[in-house]
Amino acid sequence: MSAKVRDVCGKILGSVTPDEEEGQRISRLASDVRDRLAGEARKVGLEAEVEVGGSVAKGTWLRGEADVDIFMLLPPSLGRGVLEGECLEVAKRALGEWPWRERYAEHPYLEAFVEGVTVNVVPCYYVKRGAWISAADRSPFHTAYVRSRLVDQDLSGEMRLLKRFMRGVGAYGAEIRVGGFSGYLCELLVINYGSFLGVLEGASTWRRGEVIDVEGLYGGRPEEARVMFDAPLIVVDPVDRNRNVAAAVAEERLAEFVFASRGFLKAPSERFFYPPETAPLEASELVKRLRGRGSDLVLLTFTQGGLVPDVLWGQLYKTLRSVRGLLERHDFRVIRASAWSDEEGLNALIFEVESSVLPSSKRHVGPPALSREAESFLNRHLGAEDTVSGPWVEGGRWVVEKRRVYPDAVHLLRDKLIEGGKGLGVGSRLAGGVRESLEVMVKEEVLGLYASCRGFAVFLTGFLVGRPGWLG
Amino acid sequence: MSAKVRDVCGKILGSVTPDEEEGQRISRLASDVRDRLAGEARKVGLEAEVEVGGSVAKGTWLRGEADVDIFMLLPPSLGRGVLEGECLEVAKRALGEWPWRERYAEHPYLEAFVEGVTVNVVPCYYVKRGAWISAADRSPFHTAYVRSRLVDQDLSGEMRLLKRFMRGVGAYGAEIRVGGFSGYLCELLVINYGSFLGVLEGASTWRRGEVIDVEGLYGGRPEEARVMFDAPLIVVDPVDRNRNVAAAVAEERLAEFVFASRGFLKAPSERFFYPPETAPLEASELVKRLRGRGSDLVLLTFTQGGLVPDVLWGQLYKTLRSVRGLLERHDFRVIRASAWSDEEGLNALIFEVESSVLPSSKRHVGPPALSREAESFLNRHLGAEDTVSGPWVEGGRWVVEKRRVYPDAVHLLRDKLIEGGKGLGVGSRLAGGVRESLEVMVKEEVLGLYASCRGFAVFLTGFLVGRPGWLG
Repeated sequence: MSAKVRDVCGKILGSVTPDEEEGQRISRLASDVRDRLAGEARKVGLEAEVEVGGSVAKGTWLRGEADVDIFMLLPPSLGRGVLEGECLEVAKRALGEWPWRERYAEHPYLEAFVEGVTVNVVPCYYVKRGAWISAADRSPFHTAYVRSRLVDQDLSGEMRLLKRFMRGVGAYGAEIRVGGFSGYLCELLVINYGSFLGVLEGASTWRRGEVIDVEGLYGGRPEEARVMFDAPLIVVDPVDRNRNVAAAVAEERLAEFVFASRGFLKAPSERFFYPPETAPLEASELVKRLRGRGSDLVLLTFTQGGLVPDVLWGQLYKTLRSVRGLLERHDFRVIRASAWSDEEGLNALIFEVESSVLPSSKRHVGPPALSREAESFLNRHLGAEDTVSGPWVEGGRWVVEKRRVYPDAVHLLRDKLIEGGKGLGVGSRLAGGVRESLEVMVKEEVLGLYASCRGFAVFLTGFLVGRPGWLG
Repeated sequence: MSAKVRDVCGKILGSVTPDEEEGQRISRLASDVRDRLAGEARKVGLEAEVEVGGSVAKGTWLRGEADVDIFMLLPPSLGRGVLEGECLEVAKRALGEWPWRERYAEHPYLEAFVEGVTVNVVPCYYVKRGAWISAADRSPFHTAYVRSRLVDQDLSGEMRLLKRFMRGVGAYGAEIRVGGFSGYLCELLVINYGSFLGVLEGASTWRRGEVIDVEGLYGGRPEEARVMFDAPLIVVDPVDRNRNVAAAVAEERLAEFVFASRGFLKAPSERFFYPPETAPLEASELVKRLRGRGSDLVLLTFTQGGLVPDVLWGQLYKTLRSVRGLLERHDFRVIRASAWSDEEGLNALIFEVESSVLPSSKRHVGPPALSREAESFLNRHLGAEDTVSGPWVEGGRWVVEKRRVYPDAVHLLRDKLIEGGKGLGVGSRLAGGVRESLEVMVKEEVLGLYASCRGFAVFLTGFLVGRPGWLG
């Protein structure tokens, strides 16, 4: 390890390790909440084992960012009704004095805000390994597994380093918005490679479809896991060989992490952990850049609130792909596309296109010259009002030159999305918002939102740079 | 047969059948030339059978368009030296009082202009069927075959109708410029279908890969012929089952003939035989149309003389394909392309493109995100002067936005062709002319040549209409 690497890692470690005060405070808070939940459960005769889980139980959270996960384990004999009903009621009564809200993953859970700390109370079943009933049943096993691996060797610092690195390069978090590495996944990587730097060295050589099987559950036959999962990265769950812990990792995040790893090893720097904040450009500078690059920005905005982040982002990404396809089917060359949301109702899709206006004529290739379809093709196009020239035969097919229906991307998008984009692949949960509030802006028209919303300005500035901050 | 069809065919027949005077004059002329050739051969002791062949021998030529083909058949014992040397010398001495020139197909022959009639004197070998030595050896067999089929039934009128129809719809002639139906091919079609209208009715139902086997040399197994020849249209030569008489027929001409046949049967008209001449547009009207259609014309001209038509057109078409590919590789969307030549040294390639100017930025898709090539891709593009934004990862690949090297088609073509287009697929026999005289014009710059050259003006007007004259 070079002095530089040691120096950087030491500094970062100092910034991500909770001090004694925080450690004690969080532990006490977690115990208190657990005891309250257990007491309340006893009071109503609910048979539930209450456990602290997650990074607090493992001692691997990042300083100032503790989320307390508490699991209420029910015996499998109790039905879903108890899991989603009485158990949640117990939690609400136990934590009623703090602000809370019900959230939903596979099943509902409670999120409370206790003394400035987020506490998730997650009901699940107390089952034998593999006999999973609810999606959360694996979690206590994850906690137990990681703790068991930390008994002989304290890797918590290494895990914190990796989590902070992941956050710095934008790859931290399994939520749909990010499509990155979960905390548990980071911990497994450190266990597998033995250290933070070991992970980076390993990742530097990853290929697409890399298989990491910490506990050797595939007995040295990674190709079996590859067939089983078919994902860019496969990390076999030590507690369940049928689960890929890295299933949520998008190709993009994987590649970024790999190249960030190579980059850090070549030139270690704190900026991989704490990248400089993107400073939004001055509006006048933005205009200058837009004009200079010779492409056009097309911005769609619409309001649609009331969706939890994973649903919102799933819908936004789906809609982004659909609208991109619509543009490309109409010959607009899309250089790049991205989605943004303030997660409070204001949503935006942005497209950089080579040009938002196309020539008014286009070539339209028809059926094979002597096919059955040729006759109707000729009937349709010969002398039609929007036929510019032809039809003629070329390379064995009929070809005709047509007037373009939508030479302007703005008209295309307004026309096709005015009804909410039905049949175009716009997310169904967004269609109402699209129908009622869609605005389509082009080129410098994006300046309005840019000037009025800093979050969007930061996003757009990053979009225009178009490369990860740690890259070059 | 409808009265209308009978009426049209009757009129056309009247116009294409030589009158008695022409018939006698051509016959006498052919006999005279044959006798002179035979006499001259005898004089020098050249053992040669001299025969009138082609449409004159068969009585199937179009009025006013007789080409007299005369074959000098040598015994196979005489070598190529005699065929290409002494035999040709004999012909030159025999016809020396008229203007003549030496021409070249597979081997040299003599073209003389006797009393306003073109006479081709073609040396070949007197062989048994199938034992072909030179490419011209089949021709006397073709003549004999057609004559034998005309003994019982005079189909010469039907053949003349079909030839004129082919000429009218632009499909007559096996030369490379046309890629159409030879006279012999027309005769075989009439023999096969029994009449001119029979051919049109048959052609109306042709599919790609149609097999016509007049003498049943494939014994009712057309799929064997299809495997053997793999061409859009297959007409088995009655004198040689290994030869496709329709080998020269391009997909375009085939389709045009098929649709012209359907069109004529649906609405018979003399214009299929004698299409109205294309009247070039007024220059001012041309400008208006060019502006109105929203696309751009790009015109390349260069001078290159001294090539016989088949070589010239082969080279022009090859060059046309190459330059089209060059434009398309640089993202110019080519709607249509065509070549023109006055066959006296002035050549032109014309392209209609959606736009001759492209946006200055473009998306450039790189290697898979985690491939071995990714590193060098990043090194090449990261921070490069012509990188507009990125690189970023998208759909598993690195992508970068680059400044376009050639946003203007004119610059592209001038730059790439200034050296003659070496390595780009420009025909080697044209490279010198391209290097020394290339001019690239765009949009209304084409007006110069348009105004000064009527042949080009007619061509360009047809190009802009873009469909066969008999169509709609």
